[in-house]
Amino acid sequence: MNMLQLIEKKVAQEALSTEEIAYFVQGYTAGNIPDYQAAALLMSIRLKGMDRQETVALTLCMAETGSMLDLSDITDYAVDKHSSGGIGDKTSLIVLPLVASFGIAIAKMSGRGLGLTGGTLDKLESIRGFDVNLPDATFRRIARESGLVIGGQSPSMVPADGKLFALRDVTGTVASLPLIASSIMSKKLAAGSKGIVLDVKIGRGAFMKTVAQARSLAETMVRIGSDSQRDVVALLSNMEQPLGVAVGNALEVAEAIQTLQGRGPADTHAHCVEVAAHMLQLAGRGQRWTELEDARAQANQALRAGQAFDRFRQMVADQGGDVAQVDDSRRLPQATLHHTLQASAAGYISAVPADTIGWAAQILGAGRLSKADSIDHAVGIEVHVNVGDIVQSGDKLLTLHANDESAMQAALDMLAGAIALQAEPAAALPLFFGSIQSRPR
Amino acid sequence: MNMLQLIEKKVAQEALSTEEIAYFVQGYTAGNIPDYQAAALLMSIRLKGMDRQETVALTLCMAETGSMLDLSDITDYAVDKHSSGGIGDKTSLIVLPLVASFGIAIAKMSGRGLGLTGGTLDKLESIRGFDVNLPDATFRRIARESGLVIGGQSPSMVPADGKLFALRDVTGTVASLPLIASSIMSKKLAAGSKGIVLDVKIGRGAFMKTVAQARSLAETMVRIGSDSQRDVVALLSNMEQPLGVAVGNALEVAEAIQTLQGRGPADTHAHCVEVAAHMLQLAGRGQRWTELEDARAQANQALRAGQAFDRFRQMVADQGGDVAQVDDSRRLPQATLHHTLQASAAGYISAVPADTIGWAAQILGAGRLSKADSIDHAVGIEVHVNVGDIVQSGDKLLTLHANDESAMQAALDMLAGAIALQAEPAAALPLFFGSIQSRPR
Repeated sequence: MNMLQLIEKKVAQEALSTEEIAYFVQGYTAGNIPDYQAAALLMSIRLKGMDRQETVALTLCMAETGSMLDLSDITDYAVDKHSSGGIGDKTSLIVLPLVASFGIAIAKMSGRGLGLTGGTLDKLESIRGFDVNLPDATFRRIARESGLVIGGQSPSMVPADGKLFALRDVTGTVASLPLIASSIMSKKLAAGSKGIVLDVKIGRGAFMKTVAQARSLAETMVRIGSDSQRDVVALLSNMEQPLGVAVGNALEVAEAIQTLQGRGPADTHAHCVEVAAHMLQLAGRGQRWTELEDARAQANQALRAGQAFDRFRQMVADQGGDVAQVDDSRRLPQATLHHTLQASAAGYISAVPADTIGWAAQILGAGRLSKADSIDHAVGIEVHVNVGDIVQSGDKLLTLHANDESAMQAALDMLAGAIALQAEPAAALPLFFGSIQSRPR
Repeated sequence: MNMLQLIEKKVAQEALSTEEIAYFVQGYTAGNIPDYQAAALLMSIRLKGMDRQETVALTLCMAETGSMLDLSDITDYAVDKHSSGGIGDKTSLIVLPLVASFGIAIAKMSGRGLGLTGGTLDKLESIRGFDVNLPDATFRRIARESGLVIGGQSPSMVPADGKLFALRDVTGTVASLPLIASSIMSKKLAAGSKGIVLDVKIGRGAFMKTVAQARSLAETMVRIGSDSQRDVVALLSNMEQPLGVAVGNALEVAEAIQTLQGRGPADTHAHCVEVAAHMLQLAGRGQRWTELEDARAQANQALRAGQAFDRFRQMVADQGGDVAQVDDSRRLPQATLHHTLQASAAGYISAVPADTIGWAAQILGAGRLSKADSIDHAVGIEVHVNVGDIVQSGDKLLTLHANDESAMQAALDMLAGAIALQAEPAAALPLFFGSIQSRPR
């Protein structure tokens, strides 16, 4: 077996065997296959695809290149969630404490990743002292004793994904459905969860631009899950406009706290209730919440009654964070410069472009484009309107939080005219476009 | 401009601009673009193709990465030939002296390359003392004074091709028509010729397996030529069975000498007359040989009358070779072991597989698979039959020349049963499948 044979097979659009996929994944991870051969194979995969059996084999091979988390001493059925990333997506900060507040143990490993507005770990690090770099024993102890912990992904997990993603990033081979699906799912499988809710974002602020693309990715990931004895639900959700109001790390933490106290923006609240309800249904394995509607109602109640907030507060304390900032979110990092963009006329909001807002937040310093970039937790953008809203001249559209004059100016330039208005009524955007799951429950 | 943009464009099957192609070729040759990005782009080119404008731009860019040979002080219209490689292909040894015998200056740079049975330079080096590594001034002096010289390609010519071919070889991106065409034609353009005859081989002993593939390659190369103000004729020729009798370096030199003296195998003779006639027509620019048939007749006569042989002998003398070996080819390197395979029954020859015979010759030591391999000039195979021949039981089919017992045995094992016989008559194979040329003459 050699790489040229694998490449030739894939060029001819034949399916690679499990042995061939293992040869590639293990060999590349071990450094025995050069980057240029891996790049050629990845490009042939991007252009010729992979079938279901190949994609499942790739995912399992990747997961098995590193340590696999065993959570059986913590719970006999671990649940997890994954979001494909978007602008203003603070869902994990809310959903995980919410689900944990029902006594369901959550031991979550998050990637830091690159992005326009920081990842879950970056957001949590807005809280002074919050430690995401927990030793394995501490991670497990908190999970066992408190039932909720969020840590950084162990570097020993799925080393294949780290190496392959770095290569895909510089060879134009990111945009491949089987490669995206196996990258996401290999980490979920290695993280030890049995039930997984995937939040697949769609629209200009997401990687998937169309419902059809996202459905295809979701179906692939659900199949990988069911072929790996996992229960998977994929939700297709809107990322044409940002989720909620806040975009930027500390701003999003503040919105998460509001939402955990039942006072969050309607879209953030509803989105989190939906994700949590699916996680509860998986965790209850069809017994505890027989109807999704029951799970939704109880999740909604847990936010309004404050029990979800209590779990969040406990997690911050457990992980060394400053609880005073949680109790009074004005104590979170604050930017020094503020600027508000207002509506120049009355009308209906017809576009709140998530991508442009994300790029502007990145310019302000909210995200990182390379691993070496540092993040400013205080900066970001508040988005005061959603598509379909009616506004009067002078109504606030966006508030920018910055720590640097020139960054503020650049972001303002980028956002000038970004929020589109029209004279005719514009329909509000749906939150979700449906769901896909591996088996009926 | 960056490589990811180029890759994305090619993945979308868009045409790269001349500037984009220059960015890639110059950047990769200069070492500013990493192998893995080049590999990804080459694979996208293999799978998505290149149009005529792109292929011409690629060829010219590659040619211009190194020094361009200027032959204007030697002749105002240099002619060249190129063969796409085959088993028993000693055409250059015969055709170049033949054309030169008409007073047409030939200053030919040959690549050494890899192959089952050695290249033109390897064959010439069977002659003791023959020097192909001529300093530029010597190369030009011989061309000017004698009108015929064959040297190795200068390392300063087309460095892009050397680097790109080495990468293509290990990334499964050899089999791409625009990449093959640009590799061949960039060297021809850099070698300074105005008129080029391409001998595109077809069949199991050649890279192109079907007439359709070969025609497509030939058309592409002819187009590159005409877009670069060159006159190009491509001949489509048969490489299903070896050309002539001899396969192996010194054996082929001996057959070339026979042919130059008008005593060569019929197929070698006819093939060389055809290639030479086209070169003569190009060199005469439609004036000296107005009809191809005239050029054929005169080429035929030049072989039979010995004037082509005289030119060959003079070249050997000019380049330091031992003329005594030319005058008596039994003095060329001789192998110590010989074995003849005979027909086990009477019948018609239905297959003389060029690929199997080439591999057996390689096992004997006639060719090199890596640059470090050394060549044994003496070894090889004589092929006594052609498809369509009628044989009796005991008639000689193949004679193997070896210097090593175990290599002899391995080659015999490989050749056992390779020459196929049938009871019904088998049609002889055509020598040529037509020609393509850039403009009517």
